[in-house]
Amino acid sequence: MATLSDIGVSALINILSAFAFLLAFAVLRIQPINDRVYFPKWYIAGERGSPRSRGNLVGKFVNLDFRTYFTFLNWMPQALKMLKIFVPIAVIALLILIPVNVSDGTLSFLKKELVTSDIDKLSISNVRPKSVRFFVHIGLEYLFTFWTCFLLYKEYGYVAAMRLSFLASQGRRAEQFTVVVRNVPHTSGRSISDSVDHFFQTNHPDHYLCHQAVYNANKFAKLARKRERLQNWLDYNQLKFERHPDKKRTRKKGFWGLWGRRVDSIDYYKQQIKDLDRSKCRNLPCHRSPHVRLMQRLNVFMTLERQSIIKDTKSILPVTFVSFKSRWGAAVCAQTQQSRNPTLWLTNWAPEPRDIYWRNLAIPFISLSIRRLIISLVVFALVFFYMIPIAFVQSLANLEGLERVAPFLRPVIEMKFIKSFLQGFLPGLALKIFLYILPTVLMILSKIEGHIALSTLERKTAAKYYYFMLVNVFLGSIVTGTAFQQLHAFLHQSPTQIPRTIGVSIPMKATFFITYIMVDGWAGIAAEILRLKALVIFHLKNIFLVKTERDRERAMNPGSVDFPETLPSLQLYFLLGLVYAVVTPILLPFMVVFFALAYLVYRHQIINVYNQQYESAAAFWPHVHSRIIASLLISQLLLMGLLSTKKAANSTPLLAVLPILTLAFHKYCKHRFEPAFRQYPLEEAMAKDTEERTSEPNLNLKAYLADAYLHPIFHSFEEEETVEVRVDKHQTHVPSPPSEPSSPSPAHYVHNPPPPPHYARHPPPPPLYVYHPSSPPHYIYDQSSPPHYVHDAQPSPPRYFYHHEEP
Amino acid sequence: MATLSDIGVSALINILSAFAFLLAFAVLRIQPINDRVYFPKWYIAGERGSPRSRGNLVGKFVNLDFRTYFTFLNWMPQALKMLKIFVPIAVIALLILIPVNVSDGTLSFLKKELVTSDIDKLSISNVRPKSVRFFVHIGLEYLFTFWTCFLLYKEYGYVAAMRLSFLASQGRRAEQFTVVVRNVPHTSGRSISDSVDHFFQTNHPDHYLCHQAVYNANKFAKLARKRERLQNWLDYNQLKFERHPDKKRTRKKGFWGLWGRRVDSIDYYKQQIKDLDRSKCRNLPCHRSPHVRLMQRLNVFMTLERQSIIKDTKSILPVTFVSFKSRWGAAVCAQTQQSRNPTLWLTNWAPEPRDIYWRNLAIPFISLSIRRLIISLVVFALVFFYMIPIAFVQSLANLEGLERVAPFLRPVIEMKFIKSFLQGFLPGLALKIFLYILPTVLMILSKIEGHIALSTLERKTAAKYYYFMLVNVFLGSIVTGTAFQQLHAFLHQSPTQIPRTIGVSIPMKATFFITYIMVDGWAGIAAEILRLKALVIFHLKNIFLVKTERDRERAMNPGSVDFPETLPSLQLYFLLGLVYAVVTPILLPFMVVFFALAYLVYRHQIINVYNQQYESAAAFWPHVHSRIIASLLISQLLLMGLLSTKKAANSTPLLAVLPILTLAFHKYCKHRFEPAFRQYPLEEAMAKDTEERTSEPNLNLKAYLADAYLHPIFHSFEEEETVEVRVDKHQTHVPSPPSEPSSPSPAHYVHNPPPPPHYARHPPPPPLYVYHPSSPPHYIYDQSSPPHYVHDAQPSPPRYFYHHEEP
Repeated sequence: MATLSDIGVSALINILSAFAFLLAFAVLRIQPINDRVYFPKWYIAGERGSPRSRGNLVGKFVNLDFRTYFTFLNWMPQALKMLKIFVPIAVIALLILIPVNVSDGTLSFLKKELVTSDIDKLSISNVRPKSVRFFVHIGLEYLFTFWTCFLLYKEYGYVAAMRLSFLASQGRRAEQFTVVVRNVPHTSGRSISDSVDHFFQTNHPDHYLCHQAVYNANKFAKLARKRERLQNWLDYNQLKFERHPDKKRTRKKGFWGLWGRRVDSIDYYKQQIKDLDRSKCRNLPCHRSPHVRLMQRLNVFMTLERQSIIKDTKSILPVTFVSFKSRWGAAVCAQTQQSRNPTLWLTNWAPEPRDIYWRNLAIPFISLSIRRLIISLVVFALVFFYMIPIAFVQSLANLEGLERVAPFLRPVIEMKFIKSFLQGFLPGLALKIFLYILPTVLMILSKIEGHIALSTLERKTAAKYYYFMLVNVFLGSIVTGTAFQQLHAFLHQSPTQIPRTIGVSIPMKATFFITYIMVDGWAGIAAEILRLKALVIFHLKNIFLVKTERDRERAMNPGSVDFPETLPSLQLYFLLGLVYAVVTPILLPFMVVFFALAYLVYRHQIINVYNQQYESAAAFWPHVHSRIIASLLISQLLLMGLLSTKKAANSTPLLAVLPILTLAFHKYCKHRFEPAFRQYPLEEAMAKDTEERTSEPNLNLKAYLADAYLHPIFHSFEEEETVEVRVDKHQTHVPSPPSEPSSPSPAHYVHNPPPPPHYARHPPPPPLYVYHPSSPPHYIYDQSSPPHYVHDAQPSPPRYFYHHEEP
Repeated sequence: MATLSDIGVSALINILSAFAFLLAFAVLRIQPINDRVYFPKWYIAGERGSPRSRGNLVGKFVNLDFRTYFTFLNWMPQALKMLKIFVPIAVIALLILIPVNVSDGTLSFLKKELVTSDIDKLSISNVRPKSVRFFVHIGLEYLFTFWTCFLLYKEYGYVAAMRLSFLASQGRRAEQFTVVVRNVPHTSGRSISDSVDHFFQTNHPDHYLCHQAVYNANKFAKLARKRERLQNWLDYNQLKFERHPDKKRTRKKGFWGLWGRRVDSIDYYKQQIKDLDRSKCRNLPCHRSPHVRLMQRLNVFMTLERQSIIKDTKSILPVTFVSFKSRWGAAVCAQTQQSRNPTLWLTNWAPEPRDIYWRNLAIPFISLSIRRLIISLVVFALVFFYMIPIAFVQSLANLEGLERVAPFLRPVIEMKFIKSFLQGFLPGLALKIFLYILPTVLMILSKIEGHIALSTLERKTAAKYYYFMLVNVFLGSIVTGTAFQQLHAFLHQSPTQIPRTIGVSIPMKATFFITYIMVDGWAGIAAEILRLKALVIFHLKNIFLVKTERDRERAMNPGSVDFPETLPSLQLYFLLGLVYAVVTPILLPFMVVFFALAYLVYRHQIINVYNQQYESAAAFWPHVHSRIIASLLISQLLLMGLLSTKKAANSTPLLAVLPILTLAFHKYCKHRFEPAFRQYPLEEAMAKDTEERTSEPNLNLKAYLADAYLHPIFHSFEEEETVEVRVDKHQTHVPSPPSEPSSPSPAHYVHNPPPPPHYARHPPPPPLYVYHPSSPPHYIYDQSSPPHYVHDAQPSPPRYFYHHEEP
């Protein structure tokens, strides 16, 4: 067991290293060369140009404005304001509990028999059994619970108000008028679109505007992806060929290029693409220019494929996006039951277009409950039995197994240094790999569950990851044995025994968790802000790969905040803090430092780095709230268990009221605030409608909503189709080469559509292929024409768009 | 332990006695003299006149049409059709399990050591440990579960369809257009009615029609009840005085007439009433006729009180009934969230007017969650610790205690016969009284919880009673010790141990439950149909008390079906049947007989006897469904526990899948059907609206809805107020004496209002004071005027009714 000075030294080392990280960050972030790593969001928003364009040569790479070096710590006071829960708890716990615990001094008498750490002298372990002092601990547990609940209540109200005012302040958005309808019934002799029209014209006659059918484009998207991959390889090989025309690039014909006859790479990919296209469009007329031919083939291929989807009534899914004339009408439809059969015509507020996970719209509604049942069983198994396959892999991945598989390695393996390295490394490898891919696995499981919004997927993944952490990190560290053994033990213990078993080990594990907070928490957070991996990769790419400005942007796309991983970790720290607040208060300062760092780092990252793919409007908060409540309950139960082993029979029953009060508080909060996160209040909807009606009385809402909820692959494609028509018309007018002669890269061959007309008024669609106005002009897209010409050229609504004819 | 022949004899006796009951019923029900006991509903519906008016003298009392004696068993084939679940289960279980169980014969070897009953030889106890035969039991458990779930699924669908078609077939009813709004916020400088008007005109501009404020009439109702009680006593004494003018009736002045100076009763009550009135209306002009004076005083008293309520803005509750122009508008408002603060403007589908429990509308909404928390704790305590106060009372209620309290009784108590009787009787008395008043206590608890509909109150009471029965009858009979001891034991056992502890006792208790089914079930049901208590009371009243036809009707008001008591009992039998189906199948025939009887009896009672106070439209079904699912789960867990004690380690895990499947089925059903029981689908609402618009285009909905949701005490009163005016106008026209000179009973003095005009078109309001056209004419109410003259005389809408002025 670690002594107090051990912990102190460790803390010093860790805090110094964390400060070193931060110092490194503080210096690195103001170097222009790293600008794209630490401020990518600004580039995406278009508010920063390339930093190298200003100043002299040195100033392009190193920040010479020395004043900025002195203000790099001015975020600190801000951070302290946010630590409302743990700073007061830490101060009170340290001031009151440590004197109470230290002065009783049981453990000093037992010193010779038991190996106890200095930390234990500061903890509740130091108090004699049956002591009256336990009343202090119980009182503080009450105080901390009330304090946490009070802040949670205020925070929930604040977050809810912020959410509503955010929604109210938003401009017009497609999702405000739209409802997703699932399980549209098949009526014989009537298409799905017809029955949707008929149903909503009948039941919402004053509010129904139009609807947009959803096509099963999953196969199409797969084909398009395959073709793009082939094209990408072709481009890559052609590029290499252009750079080094002397070096011939070849490839084996077989599976993954691993075996088969060796052929020329460029020819191989050209042939592959041709085969793919031929299967779709056999009667394609031949053109002269190979590039134009390729492009046209691609477009025709896509047009044909798309037409076949739209023509095929079977590809219309029983899901549809129904739009209403007012926000009020949409809010009403989303919140009410439509049909006498409660499983048909299920309406829900539509997620914003870029938040939709299109692939899951094709899942038959009937299978959803089965999917959810199966996935919850799988997650349960994963949480409790994940060690079984890993142990199996570990048993294989030993040195004997390796020698058997690869006998030629024997002389290398038998070398003493390598052998000891492998023996230490191999068994943990499987576990490391498992933990690394776990969030991905959980995300896949959530996708199988069939949620249709990315935000929901992330929330569900975060929940699954939290369960895993709770059982395997928290309980797993406290109780010995694997999760499976714990489960077995818990099933055979009485419900009152479980908190005692865990509670009694809680104080002993304080040093472990302090170390955990420092190593995993402090260092992890510092590494997060330094973005070491991203930094290295960016510079490597910058040196070796990037040829154009657009390539550089692609290389540094930061993605969204990783909610599924970060939220459960933060919640786990909350749990640790609340559990140890009364038991071993010395842990709290470490926690406070962690949260201060985390606040700082994530605040910076969200402002400057991550580019959120969708706007959830605080939809995660109810989950965070209930996790903190769960942490409170766990801490109360464990304290009860711990006290009951301390024979504090006259004080323990006092604690029994607290979980009931906490649960009641949770129920109250759920009732009080949660509807604001699930539904759109009619009052808000009506207010916004009225405001808009006065400010824009002549708004053509139907035009605004047209194609808002179209599968992105059709979006990107619709443009090209029109372009294709233009190219066909001006066959003689060979497109002029792009303005930068140095980068005629055919890698830009496809899918850079201008935004559809309504995007001018609201945020861009899911950037399947992000459109950048600053990128070199697209080689087919005619820049001279006005950006809206696409829809001007096609004023008649497309086939898949159904009207509600007003009487 | 009982042998098989014991059970047989007992069954024979019980079935014979049940048949004797039924025979007695079959004969008694066709005697005209009992007509009002066995067919009261027909009298209430007005479809049967007094039977004595037809036929000769004997025919008035005895049925002489002998053909009716031969058809009195023709209900039997009907009954068998309804026993879909248990008849097939019983047949299969008896045919398959009994041979399987008997032939293994463990117990025959053990006979000498263990005292086992013959019943046990037919049960699962007879199968050797580790036997392969347990696969048969597991297979049958699967089969029975699937069969039950299949029938439940079909039944749920059928009930839901019936409910919707019932709702669709109903005529126009106030609740279809009305929504109850709770927690209307107080806005300073604006009355509640104004803010309701403003809010709904803003947020439902096309649909809002009007609203009706709710006044806190609880004090008023209490005063009126007190006055009526005094008046009743006065009438009673006057009646007695008229019959025996020689005998003077006196009363002590003090509390409950127990002490104080002895005074003349008539004078005493007159004085009391005068005092009560004087406190309200001091300046009342004096009139000549004492009766008219009394009546006027009553009316003026009520008018003043009512005016004071309506004038006092504080008596307007933050609850209101909001009506809409269409069912669609009401359905939308009931199902959506109105305000940005989710705890304000809470809308719900309004219960029908006679279903409302007015008193609870005055409960502040904020206290509801606290009330629910407290009541659930109280119910938990009641279920598990009810023996503690009873044991305490029992310890007091022994002979020594009695002698100490009443020493003068000592000589009587000391008599040997009386002593032994008391010793046997007293200890059980407290428990008997407790069990007798338990449903009432639970109903009071539900009322404290604050539900505003009688149907909800009954559902909640039924749920509480079921928990009580489950713990104290089912578990209490299986596991020894009080519920509190069980709770203690279960808390200290592992979760896997509990099913084993209970499961292993299950087969041993089969004989007990068979006897229970016969004694409590068969005899209870037979007693229910005979209505012995009602029969005796009716005839006693008929002979001694009833003076007028109206008195007779009052004497025989059957009330509603006692859902809170009957439903949990039936659900308990379901549980028994499902638990023993696999364990001791010989119990099933007894169960089938019970359900057949119960079907017959309740069918008869609902058709002929009970007069349901409200129409729930199958709102109880989801609860019944989930209780049966819970019974299935309990039976599966107990079978798992039982098998694990039989060392059937290779077969028990097979069962583990079943509870998961059952739960998944339940979740599916909940999702599939329950919304139909909670919400009004827009499709239905719109269909009914459209239909009505074509059939009655000129309907004045506002007039139809006027006063539909007025507190019944104002209703009954509004009439009188008008009558009062008339009496004042025609002061000289002293009302003619009633047509039957033999019954000038002043007991009819009050509250016999004619139905308000819209009642002609829909069912009558809560019969606080049931109006009977056949009763002798009301002594103030002028029969010569048309029945609607009340509203004709007051065409202007009353003060408390707010209009939405249409633009």
